[in-house]
Amino acid sequence: MDKVDVVIIGGGPAGISAALWCKRLELNHILFESNEKLGGQLFQIHNKIIDYPGVLVNDGKEMQKLLDHQIQTMDCNVKLGCLILFIDHECQKISYKERGNEKEVAYDYLIFATGSKPKSLGVPGEKEMLQRGEVYSATRDKYKFKEKKVAIIGGGDRAFEGAFLLAEEGVSIYLIHRSTKFRARESYQKRVFKNKNITILTDTTVLAINGDKSVQSIDVLHNGEKKKIEIEALLVRIGVVPNTALLNKQVETDEEGYLIVNQLGETSVRTIFAIGDVCTHPKYSSISASVGQAMIAVKQISERITP
Amino acid sequence: MDKVDVVIIGGGPAGISAALWCKRLELNHILFESNEKLGGQLFQIHNKIIDYPGVLVNDGKEMQKLLDHQIQTMDCNVKLGCLILFIDHECQKISYKERGNEKEVAYDYLIFATGSKPKSLGVPGEKEMLQRGEVYSATRDKYKFKEKKVAIIGGGDRAFEGAFLLAEEGVSIYLIHRSTKFRARESYQKRVFKNKNITILTDTTVLAINGDKSVQSIDVLHNGEKKKIEIEALLVRIGVVPNTALLNKQVETDEEGYLIVNQLGETSVRTIFAIGDVCTHPKYSSISASVGQAMIAVKQISERITP
Repeated sequence: MDKVDVVIIGGGPAGISAALWCKRLELNHILFESNEKLGGQLFQIHNKIIDYPGVLVNDGKEMQKLLDHQIQTMDCNVKLGCLILFIDHECQKISYKERGNEKEVAYDYLIFATGSKPKSLGVPGEKEMLQRGEVYSATRDKYKFKEKKVAIIGGGDRAFEGAFLLAEEGVSIYLIHRSTKFRARESYQKRVFKNKNITILTDTTVLAINGDKSVQSIDVLHNGEKKKIEIEALLVRIGVVPNTALLNKQVETDEEGYLIVNQLGETSVRTIFAIGDVCTHPKYSSISASVGQAMIAVKQISERITP
Repeated sequence: MDKVDVVIIGGGPAGISAALWCKRLELNHILFESNEKLGGQLFQIHNKIIDYPGVLVNDGKEMQKLLDHQIQTMDCNVKLGCLILFIDHECQKISYKERGNEKEVAYDYLIFATGSKPKSLGVPGEKEMLQRGEVYSATRDKYKFKEKKVAIIGGGDRAFEGAFLLAEEGVSIYLIHRSTKFRARESYQKRVFKNKNITILTDTTVLAINGDKSVQSIDVLHNGEKKKIEIEALLVRIGVVPNTALLNKQVETDEEGYLIVNQLGETSVRTIFAIGDVCTHPKYSSISASVGQAMIAVKQISERITP
């Protein structure tokens, strides 16, 4: 079985940065990404990136190109399209599937950089909606729904931002939230409350998503009463969950499921480090934070390997 | 007196990143830099920067240009050539000198990003040497000293790296260290030990630096015996000290003088945050780490100001 100093799981900004730093510090490494391209959540950024120091780009795709170029220039060791099957942290090895073949690789250290994914409602019709590809970005798709009806579910920043971005382009919005208390920042709340295109429904839960070929309506429970709301699209913005399933509860998490790390990225398992959104709450989630965490974790590993 | 949400002291990568994030999160801010240009320690990087994700540049100057451009594009509030005179953390204000005039500004939060500076030997002739501008970079100046004699003081990575970089270009090196134990990484030690151009003197301390117009020799104490070594240049690589004098011991530091911070960049004073090399030991010091720390500190401040 092959063995490397560091196995990195997840090819988003955090995992990419970890691979670059492994190369820089001369650590033998493999970066595993399940998709056929590196980048992870970068592909969901449809607005300009202005807050990552040193880089000004139009969207996540452009950022992905820069990082991908650097990975190639530095000749990092990357395996794309590889599904991790199992992590055996006792024996310090992982098994993975590459082009149909099951393989194993042993490691001294594992860096877990699997990111997070949007929380789902868990109601009938949702899975079908996602499988039909009805996943929208308020920034990218705001002109598509002009003068149409769209429901946005959630009470935080992303729900509110989506609501005003679409409403300001003439979309009729139902902003649906299960409680009466919003987590969204004040400036976002103001922008939503003053917009006449937005109808706010509080104390409202979604029961089902209807429509065969595309979303046509949702059933909601509003103040104990069942209602049907006709819409043409649904944006679920109820937060994210860290992707930790692979670790199978072998590593300590907080009450929301994020891996618990210290300032060096160390988890409760001595040989497993975590970086990026899998251990970072959304309010601190950023390319900047991921890059810093990656550097420090890899450096700490390097210190342990060659003290 | 003017008042801002955030005063940032120090215009290196950490302070620049903090200013960009203040703008991004709509915090009223001023970034103070004592020099006439932003960049800080970037101007001392004379090699390619390959380890900051998304950016591949030939030296620190090129990185400075990218950051400076972004600061201007985002219209951050920067004051160059301003000397901070006093921090009054009880009254949350600072006084500073701008073009000869003393001024004050009040703040809700202070981000301390003053970086670190090389430790000095504290021996006669050192101050004069620095004032004459005899400060060299092994990367930049390696061809200048070909077939000449250069002393390098120190036992860590930077001393060893300097020694082999110069020696491999034909410079005769005295590598002088006060003890017999080296902190430099193993691979660097190997590269030094096998190089015939390097003479290693352990248990050796520098007593004085001699020369009127330029360095001509150093007096050292080697195994209790005083010796004179003729050289044409001296590189002092005995570590760095964080620039904390301005804080006048108002904030807790560790035994080496670094400001103590938690994962959010919070110091022992509620309104003072620290980021970058002033709170980061050299082994973790990097543009990557500074950028991550800056983002998280500013976000935390933003959460406190608009919860």
